[in-house]
Amino acid sequence: MIKLTQTVQKGGCAAKVAAGELRKILNQVRFPPQGPNILVDGSLFDDAAVDLIRPDLALVQTLDFFTPIVDSPKNFGAIAAANALSDVFAMGATPRTALAILAFPLAEMDPSIIVEVLQGASDKIAESGAAFVGGHSIDDDTLKFGLSVTGEVHPERIWKNSGAQVGDHLILTKPLGTGTATAALKRQAVSEDEIQAEISSMARLNHILPFLSGKVMKPPGGGIAPEIPRALADAIHGATDVTGFGLAGHAYQMALASGVSLNIRASACPRFPRTLSWLAEGFLTKAHRTNREYTQKFIQFKLEEPVVEGHTQAVFEQVFFDPQTSGGLLLSVGAAQSAAIVEALAEYFPGAAVIGEVETLTSGRLSSGNLESGNLISFR
Amino acid sequence: MIKLTQTVQKGGCAAKVAAGELRKILNQVRFPPQGPNILVDGSLFDDAAVDLIRPDLALVQTLDFFTPIVDSPKNFGAIAAANALSDVFAMGATPRTALAILAFPLAEMDPSIIVEVLQGASDKIAESGAAFVGGHSIDDDTLKFGLSVTGEVHPERIWKNSGAQVGDHLILTKPLGTGTATAALKRQAVSEDEIQAEISSMARLNHILPFLSGKVMKPPGGGIAPEIPRALADAIHGATDVTGFGLAGHAYQMALASGVSLNIRASACPRFPRTLSWLAEGFLTKAHRTNREYTQKFIQFKLEEPVVEGHTQAVFEQVFFDPQTSGGLLLSVGAAQSAAIVEALAEYFPGAAVIGEVETLTSGRLSSGNLESGNLISFR
Repeated sequence: MIKLTQTVQKGGCAAKVAAGELRKILNQVRFPPQGPNILVDGSLFDDAAVDLIRPDLALVQTLDFFTPIVDSPKNFGAIAAANALSDVFAMGATPRTALAILAFPLAEMDPSIIVEVLQGASDKIAESGAAFVGGHSIDDDTLKFGLSVTGEVHPERIWKNSGAQVGDHLILTKPLGTGTATAALKRQAVSEDEIQAEISSMARLNHILPFLSGKVMKPPGGGIAPEIPRALADAIHGATDVTGFGLAGHAYQMALASGVSLNIRASACPRFPRTLSWLAEGFLTKAHRTNREYTQKFIQFKLEEPVVEGHTQAVFEQVFFDPQTSGGLLLSVGAAQSAAIVEALAEYFPGAAVIGEVETLTSGRLSSGNLESGNLISFR
Repeated sequence: MIKLTQTVQKGGCAAKVAAGELRKILNQVRFPPQGPNILVDGSLFDDAAVDLIRPDLALVQTLDFFTPIVDSPKNFGAIAAANALSDVFAMGATPRTALAILAFPLAEMDPSIIVEVLQGASDKIAESGAAFVGGHSIDDDTLKFGLSVTGEVHPERIWKNSGAQVGDHLILTKPLGTGTATAALKRQAVSEDEIQAEISSMARLNHILPFLSGKVMKPPGGGIAPEIPRALADAIHGATDVTGFGLAGHAYQMALASGVSLNIRASACPRFPRTLSWLAEGFLTKAHRTNREYTQKFIQFKLEEPVVEGHTQAVFEQVFFDPQTSGGLLLSVGAAQSAAIVEALAEYFPGAAVIGEVETLTSGRLSSGNLESGNLISFR
């Protein structure tokens, strides 16, 4: 039985181009100014772009793909699909259609592997209520898979990175630690069975809207977004999903876009049972380093406990730089509703927790419109 | 100066998974039935999927990406963008937004190459009137680039593969031969300067609607599709773009979807000046063989001239299996309007020509809903 993780050098979101490096490249391209219909583009690190097509209808556009981070083709397909769909959910939108991005080493892998990858993805797309409508496949050296997804949202109900408000509570919906777990798997220090908690978390859809309205989630079939009572959903002011840049990187992007500081209680952040052990054993990726470099000028660690479960602060800090694949949503919500939201999510997202609060940005040094350094994130 | 074509084993659309192989794989996946909102999906080989989102609004979804087929990064970006946008144009739609799919060997290539690729793509997307709103990049062994594009179309004005009507004339808008030209470039038998005709054809947008209404094409800026008088456009009954499966493969897909035979005058099909020479010299790709295998049970060659420009029939036949990158549109149009359409396109598509007509399907053997063999395409 072929182990997919052994066929690639660089796995999962850890292989995405580091944020700083990417930004430098993009700054050199002369992009034309966006038209007024583009409500959200990549400039504020949002998870997806938003295109206003009718006064009451906006389209959410995103795509994501990567090399295998688990050995089972069906799990890989499901995780890659959940990960791509997540960017639509992170905007408060409902996915409508998905297209596959597939690169496959025809000469070295049995076609049954593609069948399984696509089956895992198809099942997950169906669960999301979207339609799987096509894609593109190429013959390539290493397997890669992902989706391009289009969703819809009412233009007044978009969850942006820039929506966090001073006084909000921060909620994280899934535990941290998929990066170190998949690194341990890739180095064959653990079997896929031993990271089942991480795999089922990565395959879980960030489809939280139905839970915030008391509605049972089911595929709408016809692909029309259900009209959802907005009680708790309206308390969500800003959102992003935590993926390759880790909690630190995505929290930084939210703080910068919103012009606020985020005060995070490190010990309140959910993590998987063995996350600290694996980090201590050195199951790290390149992204652990680049995520720290990306955020270090904006982060302060003032940890209340210097030693956590017998591990040093240095190990504990890695949790927040751990690159997530299909990680949870980081929500900035009205403080009065935060407990009710966590409770509403508890059945499907047992790890969900309030992890901190949004505060006024008190210090920072600005240079040509960009923050060069400043206290954007405190982990205490 | 790095030559992009020398960095990859498999170039352009030639590297896409062969149609027959792909179909076998997809048949083994249990996809759920599509909802009534999905007006077009991949089952009839259409270029893009169509999702009905409002009674007067349908979204067109497509994506395409590949490895470098030319050496200049900017040309590669422009061609990859034109190629991906083409699937939207082939449905009669107008592109709204594009997302980049980028795989890049960070360790081996200078980041300035990404800048150039993105610049070529950005310029082309702007020319199409769409907005470039984001994308995903990964660190990978070989450079690959493409787009996922969303377009809009009125649901009653979709050009489908299945729309060809008996009595229609067939129009091909660009010359054939980009496959053999890029194969010659990759084998370093020619320089990029020597295939400028092919490069500028591949970079040309298949944005034909404005020409069929006398309107000058310009980026609408705001991204709103212009309201186009439909005089000649309404004469287009079916369309597809000719890409990796060659004219034979895409004509076969149109004939099968429409339940008709296509009678093509081989000598009327436009080709580049040196196409036959390069084919004769053996600049072929794997796709020349697989495209022939894919279609051979459905094609008859009854060429009027056994020797063309001094080349044997065997060489001449390869023109029709030549895999195109960003090839022309194959249009099935009302016979009375075909000359006017060719004339309207002439300035921007000098190679455009009527290449044949649509006839009744006279012979064929059906097995469980699929045609097993039959005279779908005649090249005479």
